[in-house]
Amino acid sequence: MKDCDWIVTQDPQRQVLRDSSVRITEGRIDEIGKLQPNAKDNVFDCKRKALIPGLINTHTHLSMSLFRGYADDLELREWLEKKIWPLEARLDGEMCYHGALLGSLEMTRTGTTCFVDMYFHMEDVARAVGEAGLRATLSPGMIDKPDKSGTDLERKNTLKFLEHIRRLRNPLLSFAVGPHAPYTCGEETLLWARDVAEKEDALVNIHIAETRREQAQFEKDGKGRVADYLDKIGFLNNRVLAAHSVWLTKSEVKLFGKKGVRVAHCPVSNMKLASGGTAPVPEMWEAGVPVGLGTDGPASNNGLDMFDTMKMTALVHKNSRWDPTIMNAQRVLDMATLDGARCIGREKELGSVEIGKRADLVLLDLRDPNLIPIHRKETVVSDLVYSANGQNVDTTIVDGKLLMINRKFQKLDQEKIAEEVGSSIARLVPQ
Amino acid sequence: MKDCDWIVTQDPQRQVLRDSSVRITEGRIDEIGKLQPNAKDNVFDCKRKALIPGLINTHTHLSMSLFRGYADDLELREWLEKKIWPLEARLDGEMCYHGALLGSLEMTRTGTTCFVDMYFHMEDVARAVGEAGLRATLSPGMIDKPDKSGTDLERKNTLKFLEHIRRLRNPLLSFAVGPHAPYTCGEETLLWARDVAEKEDALVNIHIAETRREQAQFEKDGKGRVADYLDKIGFLNNRVLAAHSVWLTKSEVKLFGKKGVRVAHCPVSNMKLASGGTAPVPEMWEAGVPVGLGTDGPASNNGLDMFDTMKMTALVHKNSRWDPTIMNAQRVLDMATLDGARCIGREKELGSVEIGKRADLVLLDLRDPNLIPIHRKETVVSDLVYSANGQNVDTTIVDGKLLMINRKFQKLDQEKIAEEVGSSIARLVPQ
Repeated sequence: MKDCDWIVTQDPQRQVLRDSSVRITEGRIDEIGKLQPNAKDNVFDCKRKALIPGLINTHTHLSMSLFRGYADDLELREWLEKKIWPLEARLDGEMCYHGALLGSLEMTRTGTTCFVDMYFHMEDVARAVGEAGLRATLSPGMIDKPDKSGTDLERKNTLKFLEHIRRLRNPLLSFAVGPHAPYTCGEETLLWARDVAEKEDALVNIHIAETRREQAQFEKDGKGRVADYLDKIGFLNNRVLAAHSVWLTKSEVKLFGKKGVRVAHCPVSNMKLASGGTAPVPEMWEAGVPVGLGTDGPASNNGLDMFDTMKMTALVHKNSRWDPTIMNAQRVLDMATLDGARCIGREKELGSVEIGKRADLVLLDLRDPNLIPIHRKETVVSDLVYSANGQNVDTTIVDGKLLMINRKFQKLDQEKIAEEVGSSIARLVPQ
Repeated sequence: MKDCDWIVTQDPQRQVLRDSSVRITEGRIDEIGKLQPNAKDNVFDCKRKALIPGLINTHTHLSMSLFRGYADDLELREWLEKKIWPLEARLDGEMCYHGALLGSLEMTRTGTTCFVDMYFHMEDVARAVGEAGLRATLSPGMIDKPDKSGTDLERKNTLKFLEHIRRLRNPLLSFAVGPHAPYTCGEETLLWARDVAEKEDALVNIHIAETRREQAQFEKDGKGRVADYLDKIGFLNNRVLAAHSVWLTKSEVKLFGKKGVRVAHCPVSNMKLASGGTAPVPEMWEAGVPVGLGTDGPASNNGLDMFDTMKMTALVHKNSRWDPTIMNAQRVLDMATLDGARCIGREKELGSVEIGKRADLVLLDLRDPNLIPIHRKETVVSDLVYSANGQNVDTTIVDGKLLMINRKFQKLDQEKIAEEVGSSIARLVPQ
């Protein structure tokens, strides 16, 4: 690369470098600083650009891009039962493939290089993500069925997907177990998920304490607090990535810290569905819980832009605590990068621009009016969180490979995807 | 225009039209529907685009674009006293001109066609906005000085600017009186502002009840509730556009309704500065108060993107009331268009795509991944509020004139403005 105006390294000193560049060799960051190009280097001019680590979206449902805007301004239960579930019952693999392609397009466009997904037809999602060249941890969502054979099928499906991921041998794709939530999966399924994750050295991707209704139902059923219950049955450990975690008591937050549970914080979705309250993120930090950011699915956001989520995160916490200092820009960028990497156990490889790390990198175009001016080194991070949005991204690189350069997609065909999404929706949605 | 995929008219029936276009004659909307081009028409292809009324930003400080990102994550008082005011004391007309050009660039880029501004060196701001071709209501901010001559000078400055606007004869630019706030302007200045507005048939642009500190200080000073006080002195009437209005009691909201006061709601700024709470907008609607949306200045936002403000508005109210139905997408779009027009008394000319209205129009590019899919006519407004952002705008038209087409600025020179902003900042900010 020819010199970037700024490199936001996210290294341990949180250095921001002026007029510097990086050299990428075999998908890894090889050198950083004021470099002289070698004869064999493929050099990109990065003048008037800022380089940052690729953003990590720790919770989404990619194929729900198909449902974007389909049903808004509704109560969660009505939204799910009347709108989303009936559509989901009609989904097939082809539709999920197209939805995942669309989601991949949007993530590439807006600077997300790595994400954690839970949904149906995950082999088709894996196919799309493989074509897109993104890095992902994928989990088939499991929900207990009224009959044992249905529940067994969910487990078989998960193991089949695990085999599928193994066969793909795509180093960018990982497997996770995905029990949907404590209110849709019984103790047996939860412990089965725990054991598979242990055996396969995988994550457990689950929704925990998203709404007050979930917690209220738990108490009605005599199971007490959700997180306490999960601990009592032996489910909580450092493989668990708990999405949402809005409705936790202080002692449950401490329990998360003690057990090594990680959290995917999804403020935009929580606000939009009015799940109530704001996840106790400052308390999670105090308890040593790694907290990443997630967009949640595009049906409840309605997008996959992590810049939007970063800004919203900073603002909703300032607002809910009446304290503008509770969550500063650096802390928020950490969540979207380094802490996201910690959430998936990849902090040694991902989340920063450091020598030896994988080259998951994003360039922003500093000629865009909303990124003018940049006052000084110390304000660049603030500009990323409060001023930037995903559309300022002009280049996206994963594992050293160009997915988008100068706002042109290198692997995905935007027109074709739009058409295919159209035909999938024509089949999916009753006209 | 050749057919747009969608036209969001914002007419009384809130019609959304499919495959239609508009004809513009002498800056006004002449025809809407499935039109045949005349020989003399200049025809634009609007396939894969959505046409909406230009957005109206009812509260900003355009030249503060210079301060974007300069100081974040601070308490309002510290932010103002230690960071913003010392810089503002160094501002000159040339700097404000460059800041206003930058702000105009961003508004044009993100689909705002009309705005209300309060700041210093407003003749220079008017020059920039005139060059940009935007529609604006401009008010020099007035603050009482320790000495009478200083305060008199503020008034003279306002009257001088009024004369200046008259002389410009630019039908896009209007004058407003701008007493800064009840805590910076005494009774005499407030009533002077009221009288000038009455005589000149102008708006009074003022900050009211932005922070709890302001209200607490009022009580300490024995003046009671801010809005009650303003009513008691005879200040409140239907010329007053009250920015923020966060800290109002229910009875003060009713008072606003009775007196015809209009409100510029600025949720992003209120959240970022943690002004505390969320303005009681549903109660304002109930009381018949017109509520527009404002970004506030780019130093406390940190941008001028009204799409960002629309999404944040919907979300913060859902979140603060634990009710996803409290503020739906249509209501939010109304605030950013029709109600914005009502706030400046221009609802007969602006805020919707209707025959006879001024042609302030914006086109969005529906090929962008975050705007795919659009399910049906009934979801287009939801897509605008929850999925779109300002960067999806590809064409901006004010009074029938093209300010940007296919993301290319027609009146402003982006490169030159970036350079000039750089040199203004070099003079402004101690290095």
